[in-house]
Amino acid sequence: MKKLKNDLLLRTLNGEKTERTPIWVMRQAGRYLPEYRAVRAKSDFITMCKTPELATEVTIQPVDIIGVDAAILFSDILVIPEAMGLKFTMDEGTGPVFPEPIRNSADLMRISTFDPSEKLKYVTDAVKMTVKELNGRVPLIGFSGAPWTLLTYMVEGRGSKNFAKIKEFVYSERKSAHKVLEMLTTVIIGYLKEKVKAGADAVQVFDTWGSILSPAQFEEFSKPYITRIVEELKPLAPVIVFAKGVNHNFTKLVEIGANAYSVDWTVELSAVKKELSGKAVVQGNLDPTILYAPKETIKEEAERILASLDSGHGHIFNLGHGILPDVKPEHLKTLVDYIKNESSKFHD
Amino acid sequence: MKKLKNDLLLRTLNGEKTERTPIWVMRQAGRYLPEYRAVRAKSDFITMCKTPELATEVTIQPVDIIGVDAAILFSDILVIPEAMGLKFTMDEGTGPVFPEPIRNSADLMRISTFDPSEKLKYVTDAVKMTVKELNGRVPLIGFSGAPWTLLTYMVEGRGSKNFAKIKEFVYSERKSAHKVLEMLTTVIIGYLKEKVKAGADAVQVFDTWGSILSPAQFEEFSKPYITRIVEELKPLAPVIVFAKGVNHNFTKLVEIGANAYSVDWTVELSAVKKELSGKAVVQGNLDPTILYAPKETIKEEAERILASLDSGHGHIFNLGHGILPDVKPEHLKTLVDYIKNESSKFHD
Repeated sequence: MKKLKNDLLLRTLNGEKTERTPIWVMRQAGRYLPEYRAVRAKSDFITMCKTPELATEVTIQPVDIIGVDAAILFSDILVIPEAMGLKFTMDEGTGPVFPEPIRNSADLMRISTFDPSEKLKYVTDAVKMTVKELNGRVPLIGFSGAPWTLLTYMVEGRGSKNFAKIKEFVYSERKSAHKVLEMLTTVIIGYLKEKVKAGADAVQVFDTWGSILSPAQFEEFSKPYITRIVEELKPLAPVIVFAKGVNHNFTKLVEIGANAYSVDWTVELSAVKKELSGKAVVQGNLDPTILYAPKETIKEEAERILASLDSGHGHIFNLGHGILPDVKPEHLKTLVDYIKNESSKFHD
Repeated sequence: MKKLKNDLLLRTLNGEKTERTPIWVMRQAGRYLPEYRAVRAKSDFITMCKTPELATEVTIQPVDIIGVDAAILFSDILVIPEAMGLKFTMDEGTGPVFPEPIRNSADLMRISTFDPSEKLKYVTDAVKMTVKELNGRVPLIGFSGAPWTLLTYMVEGRGSKNFAKIKEFVYSERKSAHKVLEMLTTVIIGYLKEKVKAGADAVQVFDTWGSILSPAQFEEFSKPYITRIVEELKPLAPVIVFAKGVNHNFTKLVEIGANAYSVDWTVELSAVKKELSGKAVVQGNLDPTILYAPKETIKEEAERILASLDSGHGHIFNLGHGILPDVKPEHLKTLVDYIKNESSKFHD
């Protein structure tokens, strides 16, 4: 087993008391960094995902430049539907698009499960290369979209406001919906296991569109599938679940069994931590737009979060959502430095 | 005082026990109705808002066609910023736009408070005309955007994904933000009082963008202003508050003092009703996309909501958000008929 110079994130995920709060931020390998934009200027987004050298380069940038406590592999959640057979294009203006989305049971003929060690070898190659380049400086997180979120993209085909198509699909084609969710669960498990085998130290599952579901719908269409992923992965590596906007009941969410739950900024982190009652670690939850504020405000808001918790233990600092592309890198650096220098005060 | 043939909504808002659950739906005067589209085909959206005859016609349509228990005056929340001096255009594709948004303290010179009995006379005229046409069949609801939601539109200028501009504004121009919120509160109070004076039986305040705020931000930038509106209006007419997505703490939300709180479909209505502990009525919360489902599913989901509550009293049936424009009118009719015919079972 490899030795990490900074294993703060992993110790926190394992429920250990630590000397300070670890910090990383979602989309830290992203457009707010000029160094990322320089790489991106020379290749399109999908090429970056599929070229291990490029994925490795941008994955490591925030470790070098910002000093975060973990790297998260640069990739996209939609590589899975693509590998299942759905043609995928990336439009800089409108975002990712599936030109031929899933709309009915007949469309299921166009998709199939696959062997991730073959079809997504470019991802595991990127993991291996990143681990080598990181050389034990910080842990590497691998990620996947949750089955429900991937199904939503596969049915909507593109970003949506009302999510009419996915809702129509689950009401009129409930069996087909569960069939695709099953397939997705199988491939996500295989995919995340490959990432861990290749060297990822932890994994995060993003259920971005869990937020469009009622509590009952979440229990039917999302939670059971995430739970199975967690059951399979947890023996191999700690699992973080981020069901953005699924804030209705944390005592039920914790039944998923993950090591940590990431939460958005619309909930009081201290209340969530209490609801989890020591069964899992919390991750979050600074409003990403706070990084537009003056540096003093950033530090004040970060302190407010740290001070609100009963204890600094059991908390991974992060934003409540991905960092926005027009944030100044030095503002993120201010946040990261603040957490690294000051959070020990809140650890007994 | 006028006599209403159907005052079920008002009795429920006043906390009385009723024989069945009242139902109306947000955006019931809207594009899903062919009769609405026929009016809309002949005039643009803003003309419809500003022409009492047209506003009256579409306001009454869902009462005639669907049989809802209340009318809600057809209008737009952005008539207030426009009357304050912000030029406003309506683009069928992208929605409402303020071509010259508020971005700094100097921009405040361009807006001012106003006398709603003059500048928004077209709204009070529409109220009077609608009340006359309704002839006591059902009550009429008047509405306004909440100060925070209107400020968000005034600063963003158009629909937004990240709400970067409004967040930057409140962090860098906190005083200006509160100044505009003050102005908005003043004019909203005057505006809603005029509506009530003209004959509106109840009012609803929409805080659509309260959902982008952290709990602490909501306490600072939204709640105090809504609370003042409620304090001023409640002696005149019952007030419903819909802070969509503000689901972090209903025991705190109830401090606003409204007669009812409308909630979206991402929360369990029964849990909210318990948290309000008899201090207010709940309104909601069927997922609007359920109206795409087969009629049997619509009835099942409506029944699930009714059955989940401790009692049918203290509940106004509604969707968790506005009805979607491509819903079949007969699907809404199915829902409304179901509630009218079956909800008495849940009332003791």
